[in-house]
Amino acid sequence: MKSSTSQEIQLKWNADAFVPRVSIDLVIFGFHDGQLKVLLLRWKNGEDWMLPSGFILHEEDMENAAHRSLQQRTGLQSVFLQQFHTFGEADRFKHFSKQETMRRLGFPGDTDEPLFRRHVSVGYYALVEFAEVVPTPDELTDECRWWDVEEVPPLLFDHNDMIRLALKVLRRQLSYQPIGYNLLPEKFTMPELQRLYETILGQPLDRRNFQKQMLGYGILERLEERKTGGAHKAPYLYRFDKEKYEQALDDGMSTHGL
Amino acid sequence: MKSSTSQEIQLKWNADAFVPRVSIDLVIFGFHDGQLKVLLLRWKNGEDWMLPSGFILHEEDMENAAHRSLQQRTGLQSVFLQQFHTFGEADRFKHFSKQETMRRLGFPGDTDEPLFRRHVSVGYYALVEFAEVVPTPDELTDECRWWDVEEVPPLLFDHNDMIRLALKVLRRQLSYQPIGYNLLPEKFTMPELQRLYETILGQPLDRRNFQKQMLGYGILERLEERKTGGAHKAPYLYRFDKEKYEQALDDGMSTHGL
Repeated sequence: MKSSTSQEIQLKWNADAFVPRVSIDLVIFGFHDGQLKVLLLRWKNGEDWMLPSGFILHEEDMENAAHRSLQQRTGLQSVFLQQFHTFGEADRFKHFSKQETMRRLGFPGDTDEPLFRRHVSVGYYALVEFAEVVPTPDELTDECRWWDVEEVPPLLFDHNDMIRLALKVLRRQLSYQPIGYNLLPEKFTMPELQRLYETILGQPLDRRNFQKQMLGYGILERLEERKTGGAHKAPYLYRFDKEKYEQALDDGMSTHGL
Repeated sequence: MKSSTSQEIQLKWNADAFVPRVSIDLVIFGFHDGQLKVLLLRWKNGEDWMLPSGFILHEEDMENAAHRSLQQRTGLQSVFLQQFHTFGEADRFKHFSKQETMRRLGFPGDTDEPLFRRHVSVGYYALVEFAEVVPTPDELTDECRWWDVEEVPPLLFDHNDMIRLALKVLRRQLSYQPIGYNLLPEKFTMPELQRLYETILGQPLDRRNFQKQMLGYGILERLEERKTGGAHKAPYLYRFDKEKYEQALDDGMSTHGL
């Protein structure tokens, strides 16, 4: 079993194919029904969890490399990835035993293997509806699993720091950019939108202020129909005005409110 | 003249000292009296303008490398640098003739010189009061000059794109983070603060909305004294509450307004 793993890796991994010393790490948040999760991989033959990561081919744009890596390592496609920070501390590999990991993955004892030299790592994040995607482990991975953001285990390298920062940036993004286009049904109610925001922020919001701010962005269209089926008075349905939504994404609503 | 330049560079430049394939580019905005400028360097023996840039020493944190590079290339110190984006397009070197530049800088004809291989570049920006700093060219540079942001010439590599994006991020930053602590005198009037914001945004702002938003951040302290010397009614003086200001910087005011 172990020798076959070792062989697979050596067949597929070729350090020469990639731009050295630069890696990509992917923080994929999953939203579903009031829960916020993050996608982690468990490395072959062990209990080490980490973010999905990858490298850049020599002639490849970095953004394409991020999408290719996500697809190869988890099977996820067509995800809106956003760069959020590049991690360049000299001791990024502190939570990591090189020898031990190399042995387990079946690399030969050459400690100068390029994979394990210092890398500067570019972080991307995404937010997906996790009920709609089925992550699939690659040959380096025993398992892909969604973890609650509050229950992430100690990860390899600086990956816990990465998740913390990505969450901070995602939360900040809510204050200047609309989100939710790919996370809600086409028609949704204001309470559904508020629940999405509350889940990401991890705190309750004032209903009236929330509604005022959302309508103030000018990206929501209120429909004539109301939601049916509830016990209470049927709430209005809204949908995103796609053109204005995309314009707002592009602008980052930089001067909104000034 | 040319051979002495060549010698200087070969004495100082040692590709082995640095993490390969990763560079740092610095977009230094200068604010002064209603003007917004950006600091550019002119490479030795030519008319090519570019941003100040640098590389990371093997045992050095990337952020320290950014500060060291700024200091070595321009003489500027103690500047608050903020990472804004990492540039990883495969054709970043499109506006750049490798052979021509190497010849001019006095490198030998070895086209595999590591300096000219593909680099992924991490962009940092800063905003300084440009009347207070005197940039000093290093040995690779004939001249450091402040250019009006609206009049930047065609630059080497993707440096025009970098300035455009840094300006966009700086403008966006105004909507969720206070700025100005190092750009205004300790005590300032609301019109002075508004002028700073208008200069950065490149557009006039409504006086009353501006005042309301600034006070809403809870980081300004109104003083008992008023500004004297003007022809009109003396305006109030304000100062930043340093503790709250730093807290706001740290939070990014992520949930402000929600």
